[in-house]
Amino acid sequence: MIITLTTDFGLSDPFVGIMKGVILSIAPDLQIVDITHDVRSYDITEAAFLVNSSYRYFPPGTIHVVIVDPGVGSARRAIAAYTKDHYFVAPDNGVLSYALHTEPMAPIPAVYRISNESLFKDPISRTFHGRDIFAPAAAHLARGTPLESVGDRVVDYIKKSLPQARPRGEQGLLASVLRIDKFGNIITNLRRSDLHDDFTIRVAGLDVTRLCETFADAEPGEFFALEGSTGYIEIALNQGSAADRLNVTRGAEIEVETGSPNQ
Amino acid sequence: MIITLTTDFGLSDPFVGIMKGVILSIAPDLQIVDITHDVRSYDITEAAFLVNSSYRYFPPGTIHVVIVDPGVGSARRAIAAYTKDHYFVAPDNGVLSYALHTEPMAPIPAVYRISNESLFKDPISRTFHGRDIFAPAAAHLARGTPLESVGDRVVDYIKKSLPQARPRGEQGLLASVLRIDKFGNIITNLRRSDLHDDFTIRVAGLDVTRLCETFADAEPGEFFALEGSTGYIEIALNQGSAADRLNVTRGAEIEVETGSPNQ
Amino acid sequence: MIITLTTDFGLSDPFVGIMKGVILSIAPDLQIVDITHDVRSYDITEAAFLVNSSYRYFPPGTIHVVIVDPGVGSARRAIAAYTKDHYFVAPDNGVLSYALHTEPMAPIPAVYRISNESLFKDPISRTFHGRDIFAPAAAHLARGTPLESVGDRVVDYIKKSLPQARPRGEQGLLASVLRIDKFGNIITNLRRSDLHDDFTIRVAGLDVTRLCETFADAEPGEFFALEGSTGYIEIALNQGSAADRLNVTRGAEIEVETGSPNQ
Repeated sequence: MIITLTTDFGLSDPFVGIMKGVILSIAPDLQIVDITHDVRSYDITEAAFLVNSSYRYFPPGTIHVVIVDPGVGSARRAIAAYTKDHYFVAPDNGVLSYALHTEPMAPIPAVYRISNESLFKDPISRTFHGRDIFAPAAAHLARGTPLESVGDRVVDYIKKSLPQARPRGEQGLLASVLRIDKFGNIITNLRRSDLHDDFTIRVAGLDVTRLCETFADAEPGEFFALEGSTGYIEIALNQGSAADRLNVTRGAEIEVETGSPNQ
Repeated sequence: MIITLTTDFGLSDPFVGIMKGVILSIAPDLQIVDITHDVRSYDITEAAFLVNSSYRYFPPGTIHVVIVDPGVGSARRAIAAYTKDHYFVAPDNGVLSYALHTEPMAPIPAVYRISNESLFKDPISRTFHGRDIFAPAAAHLARGTPLESVGDRVVDYIKKSLPQARPRGEQGLLASVLRIDKFGNIITNLRRSDLHDDFTIRVAGLDVTRLCETFADAEPGEFFALEGSTGYIEIALNQGSAADRLNVTRGAEIEVETGSPNQ
Repeated sequence: MIITLTTDFGLSDPFVGIMKGVILSIAPDLQIVDITHDVRSYDITEAAFLVNSSYRYFPPGTIHVVIVDPGVGSARRAIAAYTKDHYFVAPDNGVLSYALHTEPMAPIPAVYRISNESLFKDPISRTFHGRDIFAPAAAHLARGTPLESVGDRVVDYIKKSLPQARPRGEQGLLASVLRIDKFGNIITNLRRSDLHDDFTIRVAGLDVTRLCETFADAEPGEFFALEGSTGYIEIALNQGSAADRLNVTRGAEIEVETGSPNQ
């Protein structure tokens, strides 16, 4: 059994280690896998994107704990969910939005409010629910506590949608930058199917018109588009940081001429 | 069985991975949990604080390895200790001070000098005792080697005390900043019991007079005090970095008017 | 069974977590140990050095996965190798050079091209072979798939050599900086046997003439040489960063007068 952790806690404080101690105190034989703890502080959208990019690569039955929780201690709910073979435990603030609703045909996820206090650490702090609520609840699920027993089912949990590319003019789209990865690749919210043969992606004043299949297809110094491993179109530079060179950050707008489908 | 690791080794060098290899070579079925490897280089006080903040969340029998070791290779001793259900392995330089002596009524810890060379890696380097002494000693303890067999018992191991808030004037305290966490919360060495209803905490020229129960209780942009998850009073900002905004770093002095107890 | 991971993926993206999910989906009972994910982007030489510094501390049978892969998606091969009790899985670009050829008398390693597609994830992306080829191949090896069945044996895999110190004048060497560690120690490509009693190491205009056995042997503020834990001579400063103080970075040249052997 595996529990994954995605948080904005960083690795310099003992927060992540403490959560692991709490989990292993309840469920000693678990594997715990860090997705990342470098989510930007309070950035729900980034966490939602990262969880959705990673959860499907884990075995069925994995429990994904996601804690980016600006509302900790407030009235916001804690939820546990099940969908497509995976469990999720998180604050009810939208961090699970994409994971629970990626595919149009996905079954309606089963979402429960975590309110059964017998699953919590006692006493519960007002500032570290990762330690006192989410970690123990996830560990109890891993040990076999049925999802239904964490609390009442809820349907009005918070859903956020990924920033979508919007139509612009006749063959245009207004897209945006979802994320910059470690290599400086600019991950957009465009899909391969958005682009036709003669597309132009305008980012930071630069026109990108070539779609490569791999980084190595491009010339040194050439900016190009590529379908990245998450399924989104990325703007990249062969062995260089496109984001640094173009001074592009997350959220930046991108103008796209999609080209003509019948060409 | 769990071994935790707290070091100032960082994650860019292979030091931590090498220690894990040594541990798993001796005790293959262990779980190893990182508390943090981002302790500031040579900062014994910070390591002592972090270990004391985290060890109690692990199951009884856990072995906590703490390596911040500016005296590596010198005559400083290596020690192994047992107290309140937990084992500790570290250089004898004070890194275990708070963990071994947190509570006034805690039993006297059993502390042993690690000198039994049959537990060490051979040969022993002069610069990496984490690999050659601490990791193998901890792994042997995890496999069942009794604590008494690592070497002689010692009572004169080094103890350091946490910086304490000192009285100042009639209802005043001179406190200090123990740590800045990832979110920019300013962790002080004040306890909840130090503050009465009409307290004033003066930090970097700002007077903080409100105690909130949770981050979400405060107004946007409002600085406030709060009892943090480690039991210390923190100065915080709702969804912002109090430390960055006030330009406060660890060790900074804080003047406190505690208010009147009978008000 | 253990799989180690050494990559230039960083820890902010979900790449490493995804690889672990893929591995544990195939081989659930594995231990996965991170060596480091902070290799500089595309830096094959650094990865080769780090793997060679760490692999020998793991138990026989450990599988070391090394992914620094500027040529991902191109015609470069993927390889799996076995030598001196350890398995390695990596792109064929030289990252395994030192690990496979450290000792002059080491047996010729058995190296195989990974081409058996039944071991891969399907479909294979063009940009993330860590997830689609290296992780699943390593997991299958861990589960008992024989090395010979990953593909054909190859002998012309890419070998790179560590930058060697070169003779210079009669008793001189021109050495270089292999790496700066977290503490600012300057790791050179000199060995203890290169230096005689009256050596001089000239680095950034400074003459270092003292060899200490441990950091603590030196005076505060004194630069000195020391045989580091990897077996190379390091230029260090007691409790300070020699690299920062001397403004030395990786690759810098070092002039050495080795001294006279018969003195």
